[in-house]
Amino acid sequence: MGILAVGSVALDSVKTPFGQEVEVLGGSATYFSIAASYFTEVSIVAVVGEDFPEAHLSMLQKLGVNTAAVEKRPGKTFRWKGEYGFDLNTARTLDTELNVFADFSPQLLAEQRKAEFLFLGNIDPDLQRVVLEQMDRPKLVACDTMNYWIENKPASLRKTLSLVDILLINDAETRQLAGEPNLIRAARKILSLGPKILVIKRGEYGVLMIDGKAAFGAPAYPLEEVIDPTGAGDSFAGGFVGYLAATRSTEVCALRRAVVFGSVMASFNVSEFGSRRLASLSYPEIEARFREFRELTHFEDL
Amino acid sequence: MGILAVGSVALDSVKTPFGQEVEVLGGSATYFSIAASYFTEVSIVAVVGEDFPEAHLSMLQKLGVNTAAVEKRPGKTFRWKGEYGFDLNTARTLDTELNVFADFSPQLLAEQRKAEFLFLGNIDPDLQRVVLEQMDRPKLVACDTMNYWIENKPASLRKTLSLVDILLINDAETRQLAGEPNLIRAARKILSLGPKILVIKRGEYGVLMIDGKAAFGAPAYPLEEVIDPTGAGDSFAGGFVGYLAATRSTEVCALRRAVVFGSVMASFNVSEFGSRRLASLSYPEIEARFREFRELTHFEDL
Repeated sequence: MGILAVGSVALDSVKTPFGQEVEVLGGSATYFSIAASYFTEVSIVAVVGEDFPEAHLSMLQKLGVNTAAVEKRPGKTFRWKGEYGFDLNTARTLDTELNVFADFSPQLLAEQRKAEFLFLGNIDPDLQRVVLEQMDRPKLVACDTMNYWIENKPASLRKTLSLVDILLINDAETRQLAGEPNLIRAARKILSLGPKILVIKRGEYGVLMIDGKAAFGAPAYPLEEVIDPTGAGDSFAGGFVGYLAATRSTEVCALRRAVVFGSVMASFNVSEFGSRRLASLSYPEIEARFREFRELTHFEDL
Repeated sequence: MGILAVGSVALDSVKTPFGQEVEVLGGSATYFSIAASYFTEVSIVAVVGEDFPEAHLSMLQKLGVNTAAVEKRPGKTFRWKGEYGFDLNTARTLDTELNVFADFSPQLLAEQRKAEFLFLGNIDPDLQRVVLEQMDRPKLVACDTMNYWIENKPASLRKTLSLVDILLINDAETRQLAGEPNLIRAARKILSLGPKILVIKRGEYGVLMIDGKAAFGAPAYPLEEVIDPTGAGDSFAGGFVGYLAATRSTEVCALRRAVVFGSVMASFNVSEFGSRRLASLSYPEIEARFREFRELTHFEDL
């Protein structure tokens, strides 16, 4: 089977300069799995409360996301409330209600342990290792994290990092994790902690992928309308890991295309509130935007 | 003949987290002409004071820069004093002494009027038009400006913009000039003011070039060591206009390569204080870095 993803499934209330929406489907596992579903089989392990609308689960299932390991527990679903100013690059968290997510202890189904590709969404690095330890022998492990874990669980995060192949984080987190203002030197430091590849997400400025030998840079798709950046990073990860799992390759050529497919999925995701646009795509639309990225970046050699 | 450039020739005192230097050769016409000199013939029109070291002029002449129209006037040379924090993207101006630059009125030599390519460096938009009006019939006019002119001479700047082919500015200035937070919509607004092409410089994030139909994005070269960002924008412009003038082309293919050559020149420039590195390059080094840019950005089509 394809990809296993662990992360949050949440109800988000988001305000941007272009409007607001209350308690829409969100969470890292949600955005990741919707994006990845266009490329390959994906199953998630997550927890929701009794109040979680069945319609959200059926929507995911219709897209082919395996939700058998989404545990419904007594209590309320994880809620996040945030807002963005005119600088849509950074969210301001107004409120976080962990609810059932506070006691989340991911338990994989037998078939999930055999997944070849694993995505560890942005959760407590202890829990990321709880998942890792249940896996048989994944071909590739990609991992996300955030400033909160860098500050509050540095030792646990380092343990997790020593076990993953690819780390996806933003540029501020790259500098913070390495304690180094120069991004390229910061990247090299992080590569010495375990990951073979670092994918640095830079919001409207695009993505920089760095391994021990080379770098690959891709700009973001130039959008006239960015409505809601929530989930951009996880949509990117879904396209990125999704494409790698679909081709079952981790060669340079596949990794570079994967960065572009990730950027494609993120560009669709931010053009409407929540996951609405992401969930209503067709594969030809995705391929067409991949070709637009090629047009955007291509120049002739000397 | 090739390019005529108008702008400042200055003595800069610069402090960065990596050191400081006092009264080194700077100014927009300086950085531009050094960068352009590797591609084609370039002549400048500028003013310096009696205190301006002859050695600087001979250095420019040795690189092939025609300095016949650099007027030496009674008084002191233009001086700029600035510093950069750990975020090397923005300079803080500590002091500006206009000196002889305050009364600068550019007078072109007869042969300069015939230049096919004109670069209007970041000076008063009134003076940019004084130069434009003396030109015979340039094939291409590229222009730079800054927040100061956007705020203090908006009407004059609009007049200048209505007469140029390419505007090169940074992303904050793009948003400010258009009064529009979305960069792509801001770019379209600016294109409606006259320029056919907008080149948006984004510091460490690279460059976005936009015309009426398409966009081209290039990341910045990933540098482990950025020592002094002063002159990055003018070095970019020198490589950009320099390549276009060398090929005498303004086709899409040439414009895209020109953006990359501009990025190459800026990447060399920021790796040492002042214009030292920029002034000591060889063309094979420039071509080698162009090829590295291709490696940095290339991915296979579907």
